[in-house]
Amino acid sequence: MALLLDNQFKDLPPDKAIDTKLFLEAVSHIPSFFDCLGSNVFSVIKSDINGNITKIRAVHMKDPAKYVTLQDIVEAEREAHAAEWPKVGATLALMWLKRGLRFIQILLQSLADGERDENNPNLIRVNITRAYEQALKRYHGWIVQKIFHVALHAAPYKSNFLKALSKGEEVKEEDCLANVRQFLVNYTATVDAIYEMYTNLKAELDYTV
Amino acid sequence: MALLLDNQFKDLPPDKAIDTKLFLEAVSHIPSFFDCLGSNVFSVIKSDINGNITKIRAVHMKDPAKYVTLQDIVEAEREAHAAEWPKVGATLALMWLKRGLRFIQILLQSLADGERDENNPNLIRVNITRAYEQALKRYHGWIVQKIFHVALHAAPYKSNFLKALSKGEEVKEEDCLANVRQFLVNYTATVDAIYEMYTNLKAELDYTV
Ligand SMILES: CCCCCCCCCCCCC/C=C/[C@@H](O)[C@H](CO[C@@H]1O[C@H](CO)[C@H](O)[C@H](OS(=O)(=O)O)[C@H]1O)NC(=O)CCCCCCCCCCC
Ligand SMILES: CCCCCCCCCCCCC/C=C/[C@@H](O)[C@H](CO[C@@H]1O[C@H](CO)[C@H](O)[C@H](OS(=O)(=O)O)[C@H]1O)NC(=O)CCCCCCCCCCC
Repeated sequence: MALLLDNQFKDLPPDKAIDTKLFLEAVSHIPSFFDCLGSNVFSVIKSDINGNITKIRAVHMKDPAKYVTLQDIVEAEREAHAAEWPKVGATLALMWLKRGLRFIQILLQSLADGERDENNPNLIRVNITRAYEQALKRYHGWIVQKIFHVALHAAPYKSNFLKALSKGEEVKEEDCLANVRQFLVNYTATVDAIYEMYTNLKAELDYTV
Repeated sequence: MALLLDNQFKDLPPDKAIDTKLFLEAVSHIPSFFDCLGSNVFSVIKSDINGNITKIRAVHMKDPAKYVTLQDIVEAEREAHAAEWPKVGATLALMWLKRGLRFIQILLQSLADGERDENNPNLIRVNITRAYEQALKRYHGWIVQKIFHVALHAAPYKSNFLKALSKGEEVKEEDCLANVRQFLVNYTATVDAIYEMYTNLKAELDYTV
């Protein structure tokens, strides 16, 4: 679990404002999560998420003092690009990034909760499918949904997935899942806070790709 | 056809050496070809090809005087990375790029030759499938092959595809195809020359993704 646990998300302050710099540092370790899935089919998703992060980082770097929190960025873009906003810039990148983050959250939570296919206890398709249905499916047209179902066959066995999360070290399933639960505390709070911000700022869109 | 025809590939010299700078300039217009397919499903392919071009350009820029031809690059990498070569650097990027270029070549050739599904004359699935089978299928495992078959449903109608190739101008099918044939002359010669070079240098690999 080194990969994830070494890079814990930070505690949120009481007002749930997310510090841009700390957030970018924490999510920079997320793309390699998709390497844990063990098939180069997922490198496509890795680059999509990488693209989101790069876009947010580029905006932040233009004026770190102005864009201290993620909300500062989204609000500044609402001012600057009234016509296209929110389908623009870092607002759009974070809109999609949060869905990828939610996907990962629900997948890990489902594993931590012991949800499993009793007939195939070493498969994680049921967990991936739950994460997909809750985080992404409604934003995908039927072709991408069908591609998801095909790609599901490239998912790793649970044992290999947990081993990869633990950086290749053999760990007991229970130890690994305890680490996952630990990781999920701040991670889930952060993802929830981004969703809440998008709702509050009416920055959410529901077009499909 | 402006998009393609405005950016003709150059005549090859008698020794078929491909000038790196001219090649990079010509292929830089290729990624937008995938926008002609009209669905964001294909943006994934666009970025893969974009990545290949970026990688070759980065090597060229390090020492333009040393890397005058594409063969100069491949040979220099064979020297520098004996152990991993040819699965490395611009050699690997060009190995995949040429397959994407071949895919486009065969698709356009098949259209220019009038190959069609008599029952669905306004679909180009038969042309895309031919291109896929000749250029890419053998390098794809069954999951990516199955994803290809799903993605095929996102292919545009022939009329829309030809219109997009003509930059949105209404042109007669025959005029557009005449332009395609014109484009294919130097384009095909260039792609053939790259394939020949990979054979001669034993730089070709046949692993699947
Ligand atoms: C040769 C044959 C091949 C044929 C072609 C096949 C092509 C297959 C393509 C399948 C789709 C791959 C997934 C990528 C989907 C992406 O399209 C979406 C939207 O992507 C967003 O789009 C925006 C514009 O609308 C901006 O460009 C965003 O970019 S911006 O930064 O510029 O603003 C960008 O992220 N992202 C998503 O849906 C996010 C996906 C997140 C992670 C999902 C985890 C799923 C895990 C599944 C496990 C089983
Ligand atoms: C949320 C749900 C989503 C679930 C996830 C879905 C994911 C779907 C992924 C499908 C595959 C998309 C196509 C990309 C395939 C690529 O994997 C391959 C190899 O790509 C190469 O790999 C190398 C390492 O082996 C290097 O990294 C190369 O990079 S390097 O530059 O670093 O050296 C790289 O190009 N390229 C290819 O096969 C090339 C494809 C060329 C164009 C094909 C045209 C087809 C048109 C089809 C029309 C119908």
